Amino acid sequence: MNHNNKGVLIVISGFSGSGKGTVIKELIKNPHYALSVSATTRQPRIGEVEGVHYFFKNKDEFLSMIKNNELLEWAEFCNNYYGTPKQYVEKQLAKGKDVILEIEVQGALQVKQLFPECILIFLTPPNLKILKQRLEKRGTEDIFIIEKRLQRAKEELDYIHGYDYIVINDVLTETILKVQNIVQAEHCKTIRNQSLIRDLKGE
Amino acid sequence: MNHNNKGVLIVISGFSGSGKGTVIKELIKNPHYALSVSATTRQPRIGEVEGVHYFFKNKDEFLSMIKNNELLEWAEFCNNYYGTPKQYVEKQLAKGKDVILEIEVQGALQVKQLFPECILIFLTPPNLKILKQRLEKRGTEDIFIIEKRLQRAKEELDYIHGYDYIVINDVLTETILKVQNIVQAEHCKTIRNQSLIRDLKGE
Repeated sequence: MNHNNKGVLIVISGFSGSGKGTVIKELIKNPHYALSVSATTRQPRIGEVEGVHYFFKNKDEFLSMIKNNELLEWAEFCNNYYGTPKQYVEKQLAKGKDVILEIEVQGALQVKQLFPECILIFLTPPNLKILKQRLEKRGTEDIFIIEKRLQRAKEELDYIHGYDYIVINDVLTETILKVQNIVQAEHCKTIRNQSLIRDLKGE
Repeated sequence: MNHNNKGVLIVISGFSGSGKGTVIKELIKNPHYALSVSATTRQPRIGEVEGVHYFFKNKDEFLSMIKNNELLEWAEFCNNYYGTPKQYVEKQLAKGKDVILEIEVQGALQVKQLFPECILIFLTPPNLKILKQRLEKRGTEDIFIIEKRLQRAKEELDYIHGYDYIVINDVLTETILKVQNIVQAEHCKTIRNQSLIRDLKGE
């Protein structure tokens, strides 16, 4: 009997350069995880598939989703709207999938308010010097943008106390393991095992 | 740099027959874990070593430990006192050991009140029928005592909501892994990583 077949909503944030993209790519190789699919009003790019990469909406549709509380969080960015449809997430959770949502700090805290049973994980390099080195190594950005990203990282630290977990992303395999441990541990939380308790009491 | 070198206090409870003794015996094979040593007023048995199996105290010494708040919890049982010395636990935690405390439900909730950063883990067989089978298989107890233990298990369920985690002990190796995952996850809790946050902010 599976007493605890509902998935866990995992919100992952981290500094630009924290390696969260790579971590998430590795995690979702395990079919037990599902990646949340965002809604957006921006135009699809070549190769992007509706319902896989995004749910593409026009502005009216998006505004009505906001109005009807159909989004876990949303934001406007460069004249386009982006948001997380509640329904998609809830369907995956009901199927027993642990759903990963990659999102920046303010959105993450919005999700936590609406959905307190979600867990917020913040990925960080061991220190900001290493973050700087990683950004420089990418070689794609000039010193001005790197400085801006580091400034942004410092601002994000003000929100970190709202996170449930902090994971230092140093060695990738260890990071993956730590996130998986966190999710497994969360499945054992008493609050997530009410039906097990009811079954034990009923016998 | 180890930002989070303080250990976690792990309180493990479970029904009689839940297999918690075996689980703990396996866990402490890993030198990262330390078992809490209780104080007691009962006479040492042959082979029992002071500071290893128990801290042996006379009644006056024990009562003064209670009075001076030197115990995390205590109880009287068959005219003897038993309790958990705070100092021993705190020394092990400061060394970075994850300290395991095996204790019944009322004591566990006492510890949580005094030491909110501890984690309470409740071990249970998949269901009470299996618990009954396990108790019967021991073959050491008559039906009357088994019924008493099952009744006690049902009473303990009233306290289970005070626990942080419930772990079903079905396959021993999986149980060990689950408890280890929980402890690893707890080390990533934001609340336990304040010095990491300070270091990140300071850079």
